[in-house]
Amino acid sequence: MTVYDVIDRKKRNNALSAEEIGMFVRAVASGEASDAQIAAFCMATLLNGMTDEECFLLTDAMAKSGKQVPRPAAAGVFADKHSTGGVSDSTTLVLVPVLASLGVKCAKYSGRGLGHTGGTLDKLESFPGLTCALSPERFAEQVNRVGAAVAGQTEETVPADKRMYAVRDVTATVDSIPLIASSVMSKKLASFADVILLDVKCGNGAFMQTPAEAEKLARLMVSIGEAAGRKMCAAVTDMDSPLGDAVGCNAEVREAIAVLKGKQNRLAELSLFLAEQIARKALGISEEEARVRCERAIGSGSALSKLEEIVAAQGGDARCVRDETRLPLASGVYTVRAAADGYVRAAALPLGKACVELGGGRRREGDAVDHTVGILLRRRTGDAVRAGDVLAEVRYASPSEAAFALAESAFSVGADCEPHPLVYTMIEGKE
Amino acid sequence: MTVYDVIDRKKRNNALSAEEIGMFVRAVASGEASDAQIAAFCMATLLNGMTDEECFLLTDAMAKSGKQVPRPAAAGVFADKHSTGGVSDSTTLVLVPVLASLGVKCAKYSGRGLGHTGGTLDKLESFPGLTCALSPERFAEQVNRVGAAVAGQTEETVPADKRMYAVRDVTATVDSIPLIASSVMSKKLASFADVILLDVKCGNGAFMQTPAEAEKLARLMVSIGEAAGRKMCAAVTDMDSPLGDAVGCNAEVREAIAVLKGKQNRLAELSLFLAEQIARKALGISEEEARVRCERAIGSGSALSKLEEIVAAQGGDARCVRDETRLPLASGVYTVRAAADGYVRAAALPLGKACVELGGGRRREGDAVDHTVGILLRRRTGDAVRAGDVLAEVRYASPSEAAFALAESAFSVGADCEPHPLVYTMIEGKE
Repeated sequence: MTVYDVIDRKKRNNALSAEEIGMFVRAVASGEASDAQIAAFCMATLLNGMTDEECFLLTDAMAKSGKQVPRPAAAGVFADKHSTGGVSDSTTLVLVPVLASLGVKCAKYSGRGLGHTGGTLDKLESFPGLTCALSPERFAEQVNRVGAAVAGQTEETVPADKRMYAVRDVTATVDSIPLIASSVMSKKLASFADVILLDVKCGNGAFMQTPAEAEKLARLMVSIGEAAGRKMCAAVTDMDSPLGDAVGCNAEVREAIAVLKGKQNRLAELSLFLAEQIARKALGISEEEARVRCERAIGSGSALSKLEEIVAAQGGDARCVRDETRLPLASGVYTVRAAADGYVRAAALPLGKACVELGGGRRREGDAVDHTVGILLRRRTGDAVRAGDVLAEVRYASPSEAAFALAESAFSVGADCEPHPLVYTMIEGKE
Repeated sequence: MTVYDVIDRKKRNNALSAEEIGMFVRAVASGEASDAQIAAFCMATLLNGMTDEECFLLTDAMAKSGKQVPRPAAAGVFADKHSTGGVSDSTTLVLVPVLASLGVKCAKYSGRGLGHTGGTLDKLESFPGLTCALSPERFAEQVNRVGAAVAGQTEETVPADKRMYAVRDVTATVDSIPLIASSVMSKKLASFADVILLDVKCGNGAFMQTPAEAEKLARLMVSIGEAAGRKMCAAVTDMDSPLGDAVGCNAEVREAIAVLKGKQNRLAELSLFLAEQIARKALGISEEEARVRCERAIGSGSALSKLEEIVAAQGGDARCVRDETRLPLASGVYTVRAAADGYVRAAALPLGKACVELGGGRRREGDAVDHTVGILLRRRTGDAVRAGDVLAEVRYASPSEAAFALAESAFSVGADCEPHPLVYTMIEGKE
């Protein structure tokens, strides 16, 4: 059996065996399989699909293609949350301190922003001095002491995913449900979280365009995690509009801090909902009890204190948590105004792209990110507005006509506009 | 528009425009498109197909991706014949001298053998001293003087095909009708033949397994050639059994010479039939007249003399044409015998593979070929045999159990076996 044979069988729409998938993934990780062979496999998988069994086998083989992330020697239940990526989504920055303050260990490996979606590591690095490059020892020590740490995944884990993702990115093979599921879940299975919550976004600012597609992906990922013995749940949530009211690193961190100080909006609502789901699974308590504890973590200021601890532990300037205005916003202001009376709709995708144009996101891996630029939304989808009302402020370091045009195009005003539901579906593992 | 966009549109099963296809092919030829992108495009095309219009546009763009083969300044009609590849198929060696002796110019660019199929260049190089590396000037001079030349295609023509084929070969994307058609026909359109005959093989020794598949490919290639203004015809012919009675370079050249000296078998029958089809189109004569002239070319010895001229013009030892035993066969003999009484069937594919195992074919491009090894068939599909009768002689330089086992497996003896029709369908261009 060769790499060629495996591609040929997938092309002919055969279900691949554990042996075939294992051989292919080992060849990807070792470099024996060429980029062209990976691309052909991914396109055949995208067009022919995979059974749930195949997808689990692929995920499992990918998870085992490199080093396993060592489980810190701390007692307690480890939780992880993964979002499929969106715009103005800083739920991690709210949820991790809330959960850690309740005693749920959050030892989280996160990613960087790419394209129109933001990344947790970039946002955390908004705190001056903070590093996400933690050695396994430092990571474990912090988790033990503080109850939470957020770091970048090291290169040695899941090398098969790293190669496959780089190929998919340039060959129009990203949008395959089994390939997305195996990519996401391989990183989870190579790590040690006991409880995993998946936030699968849908809408124009997400990979998945419809709730039905997102639910399919969510169910597949839950089944993969359960087959590997993890406690799983997944929420299908809206990404038609930006989740919060800020786009851009410093702006989003400011907003997350405001939520930890009690601000109410859709970001706060979703962060608390997801934190409750994890808390009840991790602590074995009822949903009501979980809600009470999460709300108390915010009301008492203990979650905010926990964020200070985390920032300080990773070398960041924790004074920014008490005074978020220490996180500067770019001084240039471009104002988007309503063209007519009516109800506003704000689309996530063009706002994410506008932030990239401003220099606040990445076109490709390795690009530098300007933390100060972004967009502050003054109106949300469904709000009634009058012609001339300010809808958003674009904060720029140097003016960008492309960014301004994208920001303008993101807003429309019509006779009727209802915001989408925040959470479409909640999917529970069987346990 | 980017290479990524073109792949994405093909993946979504859209018909590509001339602009999209042209951009993609230019990016392939220039190196801008990566191997991974080519592989993704080929797999998407294989699984989603192409319209005839798209396939013509692809072929045309590929044909224009490099230098055009200069038309020699000779008067007359130029003919070309192309086979999709088979086992024991030396029709070119018979047909070219027959046609050239009738005044039809054969300025032919051929390929080398790969996998289980043989190649005309390898067979011609069986003549000691003969070269197929002819400069365009020498090629044109020979066509003018002798009426025929057979050379290897230079690297500068159709570079897009060269890259695409190399990628397809390792990514299980060879067996796509539009990709095969565009690969074959791009090389024809980059050259100057006025009359083109395509011999599309079907059966276990061919890419196309069934006459229906082969006919689909043949019709598509005929329509592409006609759209480019060439006179086209195509024959769908049998490749379930080897065409002639010899497999291996020297053995096949010996057999082709024997046919030019009057030997009758399926190789002779097909070579004459194909030569007639070309002659009537090239010379504007009836099929009956074409048959008479072709038979006379053999009966009079003028075709044999023409082969001598061609071999001599390309620097080969022309004495081998009069005395083909000057082309040596390996001295080792392994005999395949009938296991029972009955009717024999000889399968082409295992015999082609046996020849590769003996060193007489190529596993990969650039491998050296032993011209002396091969298989001589003593019985043909449909022949009645008795247990113990000799079915074939394997001629080896060093013994190969793998080759002997393949040769044994190629023959079966049963209660009933009819040979397949030699020609399934003849497809005519509209002209």
